[in-house]
Amino acid sequence: MSASVLYMSMSLDGYIAGPNDDPGNPGGDGFGRLHEWFTTPDGEFGRPAGPAGELFDEMNTYGAVLAGRRTVEQVDHWNGDRQGVPIFVPSHRPPGPSVANYPLVTYVTEGIESAMAQAKAAAGDRYVLVHGAYTAQRALEAGVLDELQIHQIPVLFGGGRRQFEVLPSHVELEIVRVIDTPEATHIRYRVRR
Amino acid sequence: MSASVLYMSMSLDGYIAGPNDDPGNPGGDGFGRLHEWFTTPDGEFGRPAGPAGELFDEMNTYGAVLAGRRTVEQVDHWNGDRQGVPIFVPSHRPPGPSVANYPLVTYVTEGIESAMAQAKAAAGDRYVLVHGAYTAQRALEAGVLDELQIHQIPVLFGGGRRQFEVLPSHVELEIVRVIDTPEATHIRYRVRR
Repeated sequence: MSASVLYMSMSLDGYIAGPNDDPGNPGGDGFGRLHEWFTTPDGEFGRPAGPAGELFDEMNTYGAVLAGRRTVEQVDHWNGDRQGVPIFVPSHRPPGPSVANYPLVTYVTEGIESAMAQAKAAAGDRYVLVHGAYTAQRALEAGVLDELQIHQIPVLFGGGRRQFEVLPSHVELEIVRVIDTPEATHIRYRVRR
Repeated sequence: MSASVLYMSMSLDGYIAGPNDDPGNPGGDGFGRLHEWFTTPDGEFGRPAGPAGELFDEMNTYGAVLAGRRTVEQVDHWNGDRQGVPIFVPSHRPPGPSVANYPLVTYVTEGIESAMAQAKAAAGDRYVLVHGAYTAQRALEAGVLDELQIHQIPVLFGGGRRQFEVLPSHVELEIVRVIDTPEATHIRYRVRR
């Protein structure tokens, strides 16, 4: 059975986006700081060396994507192609016009449980990559998020948009794995049910 | 030179106290969950076995305490005695009446920089234990907090009081040490200046 996993780079004070996060400035001011750990040995954006590189490879083994509408619209659904896998967007409103050109993108109006069930079926034995702070919280609330892979970055933002802001209740987690690098503390959690 | 260190148990979503935190319910609902890692092999509250026990011993080597007024008043200044070391409380208002009976407790009205300078002088070659979410943030802002020892607990609270809520600006940290246990991920940070 496929697992659903949120991958998120987060500051120690819980921010996943800086101030002034809008379509013209995706991720807000200082967003790049949260993703500096994605740096190749040559200093380019990409696969890092060492254990963070293995994590990078692992992240890229998803078989489907479940993403929030805000997230996908900021990047116009990755132009319809994210490594060639199906992309599911839970939303109560109909999609924008570009989606008609994207056969891999499916808007699901029946709620996040249905969207996740479709994503897991599409992912087969691979995992479902969950994208978006709001969507991850709704998935947690609905009991359909299985794991969280948090890249905790050694910085305090002091402002912006938080990963956990609208979570309605207490959720117990299990620490599955900790990868300790100078750039980030990568902690993987399983949701206890 | 003495270092100032915040020790804080925090949920993954950044809470250090649950809902309904007040003097009759210090730490709020669910507060105990954040401190379960302080459990002896016999299941009592106290020194844990293994690497968390070494951290517990290290924490107890402080030479002075700098604590926020809210924190100290909730426990009436530990009845004036916290391991026999001097306790400094930055506050613009005069202390309550009990403090007259506590020779080790000093209220400092000249601001947090002065309070920290006095605490460091009193601590000698030991460290200054910093207590209280608001006070830690003011110390960070004033540039007088040196390190943060965060005990990150595998739980999402969804509500309560956060460690980082009123921090006015971006602060860069360095990861000094990660201790990986099933009960908590203990991350020590140094503040970069």
